[in-house]
Amino acid sequence: MTTSTSATSSERRANRHSGRQRGTGFKFVDRITPIESTLKPFEVLDGDAVEKIHKASMRLLKDVGILIVDYPAASETFRQNGARIEHKGSAQLVKMDEDTVMNWISQAPATFTQLARNPAKSVPIGGKHIVFSTVYGPPFVIDLDRGRREGTIEDFQNFSKLAYMCEHIHHNGGTLCEPNDVDVKERHLDMLMAHILYSDKAFMGSVTHKENARDSVRMCEVLFGADRIRKNPALISLINASSPMRFDDRMFGALEVYALAGQAVLVTPFLMAGAMSPVSMAATLAQQNAEALFGICYAQMLNPGCPSIYGSFLANIDLRSGAPCFGTPEDSLALYGGAQMARRYHLPYRSGGNFTASRIPDTQAGYESANTLMATILGGVNFVLHAAGWLEGGLMSGYEKFILDHETLGMAARLAKGISTDEEDFAWDAFAEVEPGGHFLGSAHTIRHYETAFYQHSVFNMDNYEKWEAEGSVDSYKRANGVWKQLLREYQQPALDPAVKEQLEAFVTARRAEIKSGKLIRA
Amino acid sequence: MTTSTSATSSERRANRHSGRQRGTGFKFVDRITPIESTLKPFEVLDGDAVEKIHKASMRLLKDVGILIVDYPAASETFRQNGARIEHKGSAQLVKMDEDTVMNWISQAPATFTQLARNPAKSVPIGGKHIVFSTVYGPPFVIDLDRGRREGTIEDFQNFSKLAYMCEHIHHNGGTLCEPNDVDVKERHLDMLMAHILYSDKAFMGSVTHKENARDSVRMCEVLFGADRIRKNPALISLINASSPMRFDDRMFGALEVYALAGQAVLVTPFLMAGAMSPVSMAATLAQQNAEALFGICYAQMLNPGCPSIYGSFLANIDLRSGAPCFGTPEDSLALYGGAQMARRYHLPYRSGGNFTASRIPDTQAGYESANTLMATILGGVNFVLHAAGWLEGGLMSGYEKFILDHETLGMAARLAKGISTDEEDFAWDAFAEVEPGGHFLGSAHTIRHYETAFYQHSVFNMDNYEKWEAEGSVDSYKRANGVWKQLLREYQQPALDPAVKEQLEAFVTARRAEIKSGKLIRA
Repeated sequence: MTTSTSATSSERRANRHSGRQRGTGFKFVDRITPIESTLKPFEVLDGDAVEKIHKASMRLLKDVGILIVDYPAASETFRQNGARIEHKGSAQLVKMDEDTVMNWISQAPATFTQLARNPAKSVPIGGKHIVFSTVYGPPFVIDLDRGRREGTIEDFQNFSKLAYMCEHIHHNGGTLCEPNDVDVKERHLDMLMAHILYSDKAFMGSVTHKENARDSVRMCEVLFGADRIRKNPALISLINASSPMRFDDRMFGALEVYALAGQAVLVTPFLMAGAMSPVSMAATLAQQNAEALFGICYAQMLNPGCPSIYGSFLANIDLRSGAPCFGTPEDSLALYGGAQMARRYHLPYRSGGNFTASRIPDTQAGYESANTLMATILGGVNFVLHAAGWLEGGLMSGYEKFILDHETLGMAARLAKGISTDEEDFAWDAFAEVEPGGHFLGSAHTIRHYETAFYQHSVFNMDNYEKWEAEGSVDSYKRANGVWKQLLREYQQPALDPAVKEQLEAFVTARRAEIKSGKLIRA
Repeated sequence: MTTSTSATSSERRANRHSGRQRGTGFKFVDRITPIESTLKPFEVLDGDAVEKIHKASMRLLKDVGILIVDYPAASETFRQNGARIEHKGSAQLVKMDEDTVMNWISQAPATFTQLARNPAKSVPIGGKHIVFSTVYGPPFVIDLDRGRREGTIEDFQNFSKLAYMCEHIHHNGGTLCEPNDVDVKERHLDMLMAHILYSDKAFMGSVTHKENARDSVRMCEVLFGADRIRKNPALISLINASSPMRFDDRMFGALEVYALAGQAVLVTPFLMAGAMSPVSMAATLAQQNAEALFGICYAQMLNPGCPSIYGSFLANIDLRSGAPCFGTPEDSLALYGGAQMARRYHLPYRSGGNFTASRIPDTQAGYESANTLMATILGGVNFVLHAAGWLEGGLMSGYEKFILDHETLGMAARLAKGISTDEEDFAWDAFAEVEPGGHFLGSAHTIRHYETAFYQHSVFNMDNYEKWEAEGSVDSYKRANGVWKQLLREYQQPALDPAVKEQLEAFVTARRAEIKSGKLIRA
């Protein structure tokens, strides 16, 4: 094919100077554009099925109940707000009827905005918006050069830098990897500082202890102002059920701190169907619904109107080996079904990402990740944790995977724009200009839309075999290796008011001293 | 996780003897189960947009016209059936109004069945059915051991064997690869024999010349009986427009032979947006609609009621380099939109597959293939060419890619089943049996559904990093290499009536002699 028309030649010359064509083709853009999808969500459940799942979850909450472990204060809050309590040893089984559940759920807002320290990067949560965040929680990291190893604070900082530099990552996330080289008691402080100092995007709070949640809120009060974060949350924090049908003191303790401070909670049942839930998707969705609504009820009891996200982390195990599977057809169906349930209650929905069970970014990883991400977009997920970097069922943060996933997020953003059918989109002048059997590349219509017509790849490569082979037969894994290194080389730290930085550092220094002295810890 | 309950242990022992757990884990199943999707198709166009695209395509057919090159007989048929003809040198520009087009289109059946020589493998086309066929047309083949090379008849036969052995491949396809070591004039005979002898699934006819189409029909008359294939087609054949807005003698000559013999035609515009169509998807869909309907009109004029499929092969070019791109967001949107257009006319729809621009099955190939396949399933495609084996924009048939794609077809089949919400699916006994925080693997409900609950992977691998590393860090590309070799080793040819085989061989021998002598060729 030829690109020899003068207009396109000049376009190509222009591109050579734009930075996109140099080196790996990856360009840093200091901007985010949270997605507002034009697509009508794909649905796998008809209205009857949605109601059946709703009713089943209400029956679970009324008759089976949810166990609260080691946190009687939470059970007492439930009791005072309409629940029945049964004591099971030191734990309490909490049961609620539908009216009570629905009353509390109706208090939660359908949409809210999470603040970022760069106001242009604050993110809208809910409605038709899709926000991409990073992989959360892996103990290990992997890259092509060094293989798998325990994550360190340097890795954490690197991922914070990469999240900052990738335009389709809208949100910096939380535990980018476990910084195993930092004392576990102080680790949350280092992680929060890495989010704040190396990026200017929104981030998540610590949930490893109630006191760590308090530190997260205090640091945001310094960064944003205490009044400001009471109007719009500066934190979204991940509250997992210890499924099936159970919450513990660690998670409900953190939830309490965040809810009382008006910070957003992301209540997510942790479901591997076949292990933590039944093997059938209908039952699993009913259980997920019961657990998610239960956690959101608690937030609303503590602080009616508290921004709350209906979370879904739902995969299945291989029944033969017990191994977790990702990107499966069952996962996709459940993701779509979960979205329908969240919409039934007018709650923002968290699910999806770029999931895979594979250990390296091989073909399997590509297929599985794309399966999940496609469901994420078409299902209408609002907040997407694990959108970049996930490997081995979440046990590893992958440097190359992060970059490859990021490409797919850019593609997803384009997909969500749908098909425009304005008069200009019918290209009547092009059909008049181009003869049967002719070529549209040089047409005036193409030239008018050259810059925005198609998604432009930054890492995926379209070269033919001959060119590809001549340039060293570089597969996408290796290409991504060059990209993250380039990004870290070119990285420039975003500015932060020195007074604020000083205050934050003073807070962290004081808290480290308290923690080392044993004071106020596990208070 | 543990699988130590006695029930699951015995299941696992049973599995060890079933063949699934041995070697690569891949099991030959001599059966196909064409998919009948329970999912409501995903739609990207509202009703207004569908009508706008319809009206735009009608305007293209009425005012711009389609050029027929070197085949005046076809133009004459159009003229006799309501079209206006304008002469353009030796070609004719054919213009039709909406009423004429819609009248002919309404003659085409909404569904039909294509015969396979194994009657249990005949395939339903249209409605909610999804039929997976193989990669079509690559001049090259590639495998991990030998790299890229020109395809040979041995490769063609190998792919026919693999198609036969893979249960989620419902249809053997057509040009599995170009057998470059066979004289181009006789090649179609060798390809047809490879489909017939090495598999028992349905296949496609030759379109390289009118006379080759006649040979295809004659061989099916021998194989199925002349009367039988007049009631149900034994061939589906791929008629490409030489887009934009043009058909030639080769394709319309073949279409004529097939339509007159009552064999199915698959009319497919060949569109790389930005090159063969405008850069906007609305205009591209309108052009595709015009070209596809035009070809189907011709089939209906020749033989009203001729089984006809509305084809879409629609990707886009990288405007910077002119390189074809696959698995892009624009492709997916167009695939969904095209399905909506085909449904508007109650025509079976062909599109999708496992497309990639990548040269090897790397991460990019996985992402891009899954993107296309997901749209294929959710969009409601009926006939899926290129469902397995496609690499480098269709220039290579990949042995490993074929196996990896096949895994995704199995997953797609499960996806299309949707979520069942019968009483048993709510697993009430499991919730009664499993305590909060407990484990569902050993529950009676899990045991009842153990065999069918989840899609069981045959090539993708869920092992954790330690096990995976201990077993040689085998990525999915390498794993697939073991599988296709195992399949070819274990391959056993399906039986064929010796009298029929003899008749076919006699026909082929006679035709080879005629072709070599120059008789009847290009008649």
